[in-house]
Amino acid sequence: MEPNTPASTDSTIPADHPGVGELFAVLAYGEISAFYRLSEDAQMARTLQGKVALASMAAAEMGHFEMLEKALTARGFDIFEAMDPFVRALDNYHASTTPSTWLEALVKAYVGDGIAADFYREIGHSLPAEVSRTVEEVLSQTGHSEFVVHEVQQAIKASNRDKDRLMLWGRRLLGEAITQAQFVLAQREALTELVISASGDLNGVVALFDRMQEMHAERMAVLGLV
Amino acid sequence: MEPNTPASTDSTIPADHPGVGELFAVLAYGEISAFYRLSEDAQMARTLQGKVALASMAAAEMGHFEMLEKALTARGFDIFEAMDPFVRALDNYHASTTPSTWLEALVKAYVGDGIAADFYREIGHSLPAEVSRTVEEVLSQTGHSEFVVHEVQQAIKASNRDKDRLMLWGRRLLGEAITQAQFVLAQREALTELVISASGDLNGVVALFDRMQEMHAERMAVLGLV
Repeated sequence: MEPNTPASTDSTIPADHPGVGELFAVLAYGEISAFYRLSEDAQMARTLQGKVALASMAAAEMGHFEMLEKALTARGFDIFEAMDPFVRALDNYHASTTPSTWLEALVKAYVGDGIAADFYREIGHSLPAEVSRTVEEVLSQTGHSEFVVHEVQQAIKASNRDKDRLMLWGRRLLGEAITQAQFVLAQREALTELVISASGDLNGVVALFDRMQEMHAERMAVLGLV
Repeated sequence: MEPNTPASTDSTIPADHPGVGELFAVLAYGEISAFYRLSEDAQMARTLQGKVALASMAAAEMGHFEMLEKALTARGFDIFEAMDPFVRALDNYHASTTPSTWLEALVKAYVGDGIAADFYREIGHSLPAEVSRTVEEVLSQTGHSEFVVHEVQQAIKASNRDKDRLMLWGRRLLGEAITQAQFVLAQREALTELVISASGDLNGVVALFDRMQEMHAERMAVLGLV
C-alpha cells in the first residue's frame, strides 16, 4: 500500500472516534505482553536457532509497540495510562495459556499472533484510513514464522501424540482469546462501539467471530494440525 | 559517519583477518545473551514503564544481532557455528552476575553494555574500515539509557545502603567481564592476534584494559556511584 493511499475511503467512522485510542492501547499492551511471553518461552528452546527465532519475533513486537506509542502520543494519550485497562485481560490470557512444552510455545507464537491479526484486519478495512494504516503496519508479518511452521510440521510427523495434543492446545488458545476479547468488549464502551460500527451491527460482530474461527482453522492446517 | 567514508585509512590489518569473524561472532552471541538477560531481569520491574524500558533495550540488541548475522553471512560464516565457541564465556559472565534486585538489573544493563562497547571501540579504530563500520553500527546508542540513569540516581539519593551495594556491584561486573574476556582471548588465537594487532602490541593490550577501567569509573560516576 502506498503511504498516502487511503486504506478505505468509505469509512463512516470519524478518525477521532474515542474507540481508536483504546484500539491502539490494547494492541500496544498486546505487543508488550507477547514480547515477555515469547522471551520467556524461548527458555524451552532445544537449540540456539530456536532461541534466536523467538527472540527475533519478540523484538519485532517491540518495534510494533514503538509505532503504537507514536500514534497514541500524536493523539495526546499517555501510553501507560491508556494501556492500563487492558493489562488484566491480556495477562489473564497469557496466564491461562502458559505453554508447558517447546512445541506448545511455538504453536502459541504462531496461532496467537494470527488470532490477534485476524481480529484487527477484520475491523481494519472499515476504519478511517489513517487508523487502518497504523493497524496494518503494526500487523505486518515479522518473517520469522517459517521457522515455527517447519519445526511443528517436523515434530508432528514424528509423533501422533504430539499432534493430538497440539490440536487441543490450538483450540484452547482460540477459546481463551475469544473469552478475553469478550471480557474487554464488555468493559470498554468506546472500543465496543468502534467494533460494532466497523462490523456494521451486532450481527456483524457475530459474523466476525465466526470468520476468526475459520481463519484459525486454516492456520492450524498450515501447521499440519488437521 | 558517511556510509562510504572509511573509519580508518591507516589500518595494517587485512579485512579478511581470521579474527574478524570471531570478533563478529562474540559480539553476536553477546547480543543474544544480553537480550535474554534483559528480558528476564525485566520481571523485577516495579512499573510497566520499567518493563517497557528493558524490553526496548532488549529489542535493540536483537537489531544489532541481525546486523552481525548479515556481516557474518556475507563473509561465508554460519552464525550458529561461529558463535558456539563463545557461548560458555558469555553464559558464565551472566550466570556469575545475575542481578538479585531491580536496581542491580538496571546498573548491569547500563554498565555491562558500556564495558562491551568500550572494548570494541578501543580496538575498532585500528581495524580495517569495513570491519570498524560494522562494529560502530552495532554499538550505536539505543537511546533508552536515560531511563536507567534517572532511576538509579533517584534510588541512591534515597538510600546510602543501596548506593554502597551498587558500587560493589559495579566493581564486580567489571571484574567478571575482564575475567571472561581473558578466558576468551586465551582460547581464541585468531581473535587474540587481532586484538594485539589492533592495540599495537601486548603492552597495548594492557593499556587497553587500563583505559576500560577508567571508562567504567566514569560511567559509574554518571549513575552517581562515586
